[in-house]
Amino acid sequence: MAELSRRRFLGSLAGAGVAGAGLAIAGTSISAAASASAAADTVAFRGANQAGISTDVQNQLAFAAFDVTSTERADLVSMLQSWTTAAEAMTRGAPVPGDSATSDVPPADTGEADGLTASRLTMTIGFGPSLFDNRFGLAARRPAALQPLPALPGELLDNTRSNGDIAVQACADDPQVAFHAIRNLARIGRGTVVNRWTQLGFGRTSVTGAGQSTPRNLMGFKDGTRNIRGDDTTALDQHVWIGDGTDQAWMRGGTYLVARRIRMFVENWDRDLLSDQQAVFGRTKSAGAPLTGTDEFDTPDFAATGPDGTHVIPDDAHIRLAAFENNNGLRILRRGYSFNDGIDPSTGGLEAGLFFISFQSDPATFVTLQRKLGANDALNEYIQHVASGLFVCPPGMTRDGDYWGSGLFEA
Amino acid sequence: MAELSRRRFLGSLAGAGVAGAGLAIAGTSISAAASASAAADTVAFRGANQAGISTDVQNQLAFAAFDVTSTERADLVSMLQSWTTAAEAMTRGAPVPGDSATSDVPPADTGEADGLTASRLTMTIGFGPSLFDNRFGLAARRPAALQPLPALPGELLDNTRSNGDIAVQACADDPQVAFHAIRNLARIGRGTVVNRWTQLGFGRTSVTGAGQSTPRNLMGFKDGTRNIRGDDTTALDQHVWIGDGTDQAWMRGGTYLVARRIRMFVENWDRDLLSDQQAVFGRTKSAGAPLTGTDEFDTPDFAATGPDGTHVIPDDAHIRLAAFENNNGLRILRRGYSFNDGIDPSTGGLEAGLFFISFQSDPATFVTLQRKLGANDALNEYIQHVASGLFVCPPGMTRDGDYWGSGLFEA
Repeated sequence: MAELSRRRFLGSLAGAGVAGAGLAIAGTSISAAASASAAADTVAFRGANQAGISTDVQNQLAFAAFDVTSTERADLVSMLQSWTTAAEAMTRGAPVPGDSATSDVPPADTGEADGLTASRLTMTIGFGPSLFDNRFGLAARRPAALQPLPALPGELLDNTRSNGDIAVQACADDPQVAFHAIRNLARIGRGTVVNRWTQLGFGRTSVTGAGQSTPRNLMGFKDGTRNIRGDDTTALDQHVWIGDGTDQAWMRGGTYLVARRIRMFVENWDRDLLSDQQAVFGRTKSAGAPLTGTDEFDTPDFAATGPDGTHVIPDDAHIRLAAFENNNGLRILRRGYSFNDGIDPSTGGLEAGLFFISFQSDPATFVTLQRKLGANDALNEYIQHVASGLFVCPPGMTRDGDYWGSGLFEA
Repeated sequence: MAELSRRRFLGSLAGAGVAGAGLAIAGTSISAAASASAAADTVAFRGANQAGISTDVQNQLAFAAFDVTSTERADLVSMLQSWTTAAEAMTRGAPVPGDSATSDVPPADTGEADGLTASRLTMTIGFGPSLFDNRFGLAARRPAALQPLPALPGELLDNTRSNGDIAVQACADDPQVAFHAIRNLARIGRGTVVNRWTQLGFGRTSVTGAGQSTPRNLMGFKDGTRNIRGDDTTALDQHVWIGDGTDQAWMRGGTYLVARRIRMFVENWDRDLLSDQQAVFGRTKSAGAPLTGTDEFDTPDFAATGPDGTHVIPDDAHIRLAAFENNNGLRILRRGYSFNDGIDPSTGGLEAGLFFISFQSDPATFVTLQRKLGANDALNEYIQHVASGLFVCPPGMTRDGDYWGSGLFEA
């Protein structure tokens, strides 16, 4: 393996005279030289916005939602500080800081990522509406828009896989690195939080990087062709990042994360004709071109009609209903992943689909789009939203001493 | 992506004057030139033994067990022929052969791997004891050793995730490629089989390749250090491949696959002291060295005693109980994967662990080892076997017209 492994990385830091960087506390910069040598495989943890939102989508997901069981604000803050330190280390490819080599204590890091590289790990935190109740004195800091999502058409939600006080999204190119990241936060959080639900995703279904190819979802269609790109700062500022107009200053530079577990009835889909599949999406399956074009990136012509006078892109086609042109310019940034969790015992079908994640500066954007899609989308014959969560992601960290949510707790 | 994608691969075949190779039937050779150009990313499907056993372990697993619902032997044979054709194509990085571009039929391939490379996909088939009942006239061809595994100490098996008439193991470096392979077999098998259970694995926990590094399991320990290597033909012939002594000639060159879903109680493990963890395995966590050595590949000294007169590698240490030196030379070839299937609602803990797969020329080898481990292993405090399956894998295919199991059905 050409990339720098976690163990070698620590060794190289030690050799460069920065021994102990593996134990770096939040806010400490590592040396520029060490940073550069590992750069190809790492994504910066700190910055104006959290990583894992507009940064290039990695191939693997481990997502977890937690409920806080402690009633002490100090416990919550302390855990978030510890989480930040651990997350920052892990995103560098280093183990969770602490004593892992002494025999008479449990290791600080669970160890299954030892020897693996950072694998472009990003860790992104969000806070659910339920965190802003009376337990931690956060009610006055709750943004008006952070309310549980309303009931949406066609959904059938499993509450045990929905919601939560805190969510953490770990994305990486290596699934063991992503799992390790979530697991170690759960371990650090023991006594303060319980793990409410987790979801693994095995294939990105979106694209944010300018040079990334468009992947396919489990329906076999390219997904993410028209997604907001990570270098489109104008679109990000307009649609994703919470700006100066926010009612809660601590959120500026943050965003809202919507998670939807979307079951796909793949066995039914696989028996549908190619022509029907293409009509459902409004795109060709192979090239991913809109039915009015030949190339994936051709702009859909929603007005075009065929010989019989009906729209070439059908009135209930997914891309027509979802397109910003038909929604007053509304856009969301998607970062979904495919999943398969075995066989659904109630039907014998695969418990598979899309773990949809979107980021938007106002959850109302998602609600507006999903009300329309849930009521009219031809795709609804083959999918169902079966779990849901809404979380507000704080901004990134730029100052010494910043930790996940410090703006919420400290300001 | 530098590797040849499925779509480009088909294009290159067409350009080389072998158009239609994507539709190749079982037994047809593709051109040497095209084969060589994709070789780095592909594992040969045909040969004296099935691929996916002694070939280098890939990083991702999709495993499925099927039950046959048709009562017609001809349906079963026809499906196995179609599966073979599809599997051979997919392991080349090509789509499932058939009509995928005509609008008025369902696509022959579900499409989600379109654009991905072969990703070293291997597909390996096995037949369970239940297939050899009276339904298909196979009772006389049942090997004497192919009996349901006996009850083993400490196990608590979920029958809905255990056993099955047929098993297919798909291993690949890309999880979407592995999932695609299993899903398309399920689709082809509709009406003949139902999918009984599936399991995804996200990190190999073993090593078969001479140049492969030793991975870590979810307990953070290196796993597979002493595994049989794929180039150790002497050990493979002795311990893995069914030889001339078999009571069923159709099995010669095959092997027995044992699958065990092993739940790890990771939350408890993570609270254990490093010294205890190391005593449980009999190895150091970081280097993976036996407690009597300093290097991972040092031979364990099971006789060595410490100052207090007790064994340095404890009497109940995992490596002592499992070592061939202490089991009359018995060895198995392992090919396990880590898994995480969310939160166990009964405990709130991670439903995570090791999907153990082993290959051996006689299932009694596994039974002997597991009886001993299940009764005595210090690891048992932290694990439980929760699902199980035994399957006999037929040999590989070398002749035109061979298909998965043809020796069983045709000879």
